[in-house]
Amino acid sequence: MTESALFTDFYSLTMAQGYWKCGMDDRAVFEMFYRKQPFEGGYSIFAGLGTLLEKLKNLSFSPDDIAYLESIGIFDKDFLGYLKDFQFQGSLWAMDEGTVIFPHEPLIRVDGGLIECQIIEGLLLNTINFQSLIATKASRVWLASGKGAVMEFGLRRAQGPDGAAAASRAAFIGGAFGTSNVLAAKEYHIPALGTMAHSWIMSFPSEEEAFQTYADLYPEHPVFLIDTYDTLKSGIKNAVTVGKRLAEKGVNFGVRLDSGDIHYLSVKVRKALDDAGLDKATIAVSNDLDESIIETLYGAGAPVNSWGVGTQLVTGGKDSSFPGVYKLAARIDASGSIKPSMKFSDNPEKTTNPGIKQVWRIHDSQSMALVDVLTLDDPAEISEAEHPENPYKLGESHLFWHPSGDYRHFRLTIDGNAEALLKPRMKNGVFLGVCPSLQDIQMKVRTGLEEFDRSYKRLLNPHVYKVSITSSLRDLKLNLIQSYLGDL
Amino acid sequence: MTESALFTDFYSLTMAQGYWKCGMDDRAVFEMFYRKQPFEGGYSIFAGLGTLLEKLKNLSFSPDDIAYLESIGIFDKDFLGYLKDFQFQGSLWAMDEGTVIFPHEPLIRVDGGLIECQIIEGLLLNTINFQSLIATKASRVWLASGKGAVMEFGLRRAQGPDGAAAASRAAFIGGAFGTSNVLAAKEYHIPALGTMAHSWIMSFPSEEEAFQTYADLYPEHPVFLIDTYDTLKSGIKNAVTVGKRLAEKGVNFGVRLDSGDIHYLSVKVRKALDDAGLDKATIAVSNDLDESIIETLYGAGAPVNSWGVGTQLVTGGKDSSFPGVYKLAARIDASGSIKPSMKFSDNPEKTTNPGIKQVWRIHDSQSMALVDVLTLDDPAEISEAEHPENPYKLGESHLFWHPSGDYRHFRLTIDGNAEALLKPRMKNGVFLGVCPSLQDIQMKVRTGLEEFDRSYKRLLNPHVYKVSITSSLRDLKLNLIQSYLGDL
Repeated sequence: MTESALFTDFYSLTMAQGYWKCGMDDRAVFEMFYRKQPFEGGYSIFAGLGTLLEKLKNLSFSPDDIAYLESIGIFDKDFLGYLKDFQFQGSLWAMDEGTVIFPHEPLIRVDGGLIECQIIEGLLLNTINFQSLIATKASRVWLASGKGAVMEFGLRRAQGPDGAAAASRAAFIGGAFGTSNVLAAKEYHIPALGTMAHSWIMSFPSEEEAFQTYADLYPEHPVFLIDTYDTLKSGIKNAVTVGKRLAEKGVNFGVRLDSGDIHYLSVKVRKALDDAGLDKATIAVSNDLDESIIETLYGAGAPVNSWGVGTQLVTGGKDSSFPGVYKLAARIDASGSIKPSMKFSDNPEKTTNPGIKQVWRIHDSQSMALVDVLTLDDPAEISEAEHPENPYKLGESHLFWHPSGDYRHFRLTIDGNAEALLKPRMKNGVFLGVCPSLQDIQMKVRTGLEEFDRSYKRLLNPHVYKVSITSSLRDLKLNLIQSYLGDL
Repeated sequence: MTESALFTDFYSLTMAQGYWKCGMDDRAVFEMFYRKQPFEGGYSIFAGLGTLLEKLKNLSFSPDDIAYLESIGIFDKDFLGYLKDFQFQGSLWAMDEGTVIFPHEPLIRVDGGLIECQIIEGLLLNTINFQSLIATKASRVWLASGKGAVMEFGLRRAQGPDGAAAASRAAFIGGAFGTSNVLAAKEYHIPALGTMAHSWIMSFPSEEEAFQTYADLYPEHPVFLIDTYDTLKSGIKNAVTVGKRLAEKGVNFGVRLDSGDIHYLSVKVRKALDDAGLDKATIAVSNDLDESIIETLYGAGAPVNSWGVGTQLVTGGKDSSFPGVYKLAARIDASGSIKPSMKFSDNPEKTTNPGIKQVWRIHDSQSMALVDVLTLDDPAEISEAEHPENPYKLGESHLFWHPSGDYRHFRLTIDGNAEALLKPRMKNGVFLGVCPSLQDIQMKVRTGLEEFDRSYKRLLNPHVYKVSITSSLRDLKLNLIQSYLGDL
């Protein structure tokens, strides 16, 4: 399936033509990173890489796309001819999909011609930003539920059809065990889930008949929605009536609460079920849940077996975007010499870290993550090394600087392993290796989160994990600031 | 282009099989409405109808979709055979796309077999919810800018590729004059817009050379991004240098501010331009703008000519979903007799208004909108009438009840026209008429907003526009509550 390269910002194409006409399509390195955790959280989850690689492989301008660009009137025939044959031929490093990530770290590094690097900016950011937002949200919801059963029910409130499908993928990565979105379930090989709607119950002469009919049709753990008329006065009573018949046949069932006070009702409903001898029956809840509500319910011991989370999970709720950016890190001339680039900006927090970088995660002797550090990559190695040489050996002592480049620093003696997080994924347009399954990526998130002290995973006021830069990166940054801004 | 009908919630298909097996595919009427304005606003904009109708026309289950459903193991061969030939054959009423809307009003009414009505629920809600959210946001941004030039720049932070494309469409409807998203610009025939990125400037030996080169390439009002190094110490100076050369050739230009204090910088930059005799040069601003920031800047007289709005515009920011729901309003048996349906719920605000309804917008003698009223539609008319008979004639007096069905009411003597907002769009699966152009829909929004007093359009604490129900609808509602819940 081809992917239209028109999915880009207009300025990427006007700049691309500029570079092309000026003969400036030299080798460049761009890095994607972000500046601030969403959800006021202590970590994020990197997601969307599999989707991005798939799209990069198939990226092109169709004849129709070219005709459209021609119709705009500012693109020359020659440049359009170049676009007609465009394919992404660059190289790409990225963290493993599912990695626990932090601000300032390059998540993806693109090394290619300046033009192709520019053209893919929008696609790269759109894909990674959205899926990382949702995978992060899902992991928070999953942790808040005590690593429980989270069902993604967001299709109807998602931001467009792909906003739903990509969200289903990312929510699964972050910890959901399935989705209500059948198309996404098919496409991503994840479980399709659901219960019943109010309209089902309203279509039958009685609530009891609606429940019974459904159980007859789907005897494998049917789940009855019990709030259409009144949860306690009607719904649970009819569920118990039908549930007792099912129990006699050895069939278990569940109920779903979708309105009212979830804690109060779940306790009452649990008691009604238990009193009827239906202690194996399960309780699912929904109704605009998010990680804070779930944490409160779970912490208070509400008897809930599964959580249906829709709107908040697939949109991110109040934090509806992941603030990833894509910045020029260096130019490389024909002789291979590297010229680090840096953006200054009038907002100090928008100042970038220059140069081509690797990210090392340093663990303690118990394999708990202690600090991530950004290092300058050796130009000789950046194209080739699958396993760059580890500069952080056991017993050695190193100086770590705050990424803003100011005076804050600390010294650490290495007593655990160090891992290079950026790994090669594409070389000169050719995909390296295979993408892991979503199940494997989900597992990567689960094991990755185990490496971090719980203080980093708190919903409220989490501890800030340290991301540092090396002395040489700091020196480069300070020198560039001096040389660019010294005489302003 | 076919549209996979698998884009639905799993329970829609399990319920559909249930209805099918039980021989319950009678005629049903569902209505889509919403309960609460997003953005704490006083109105919303109805959008997405054109997209929805296009998708309904092409909705089907592919052989591949059927094979997937079969693999799940709970769908029978016979039912899968039914799905294989599935097409939407129902009828659909809707408000004009671009209508100013309010809570409780049916925006869309679907009249068809129970099964098809259920299968399209997710598609309908997903499409209308998202586009209405963004069109509403865009109209707020546009009003806040004094009906100024709003450019949608959201591709990189949008929720997936379609989250970007559908947002571009809806943002245009709500008031944006174009988008940075080239694919969306092509697909929806709206202007493609953009300036330049920091990487352009960083790719040249000097800022001045970067500006000059761009102006040479694109002499039609080039816009220079001036904050890469330092807006006042570097960017504006180089822009003035290049701009003076352009002015000599009769070429106008602009600058864009993307960081720092926009008000402070825009005043300084305006002065620098004016002092250089470049008073025609324009100032564009961006940097995480929303309607509140824009209202403040515009109200304070910041000298800004155009507004680039990205993230907040295409995601809705803190309000990232539109709370539209789709509820069974009535069943119609073979004899044509209507059985109104109603959902009660444990949240009073989730109780629905029963029966098949029309919405009338009643104006005063100055053509200003006064009140919307929900009426019960005559069963004989619901399938056919393009122009239902107006029950609100000049000089007549009517009683209007609060939609919750409680005691609040008022009496109004009609002194302007009344307009039926729901109009037929599809009849038995056949599309009626043509969809208006996006330009026409944008104009519909602009003229529609003029009908409402400015107090309804305030960003902060807007006046609540009255949505009422008729006495007969209220009686039906109270009777149903009595008959369903009276003995609980």
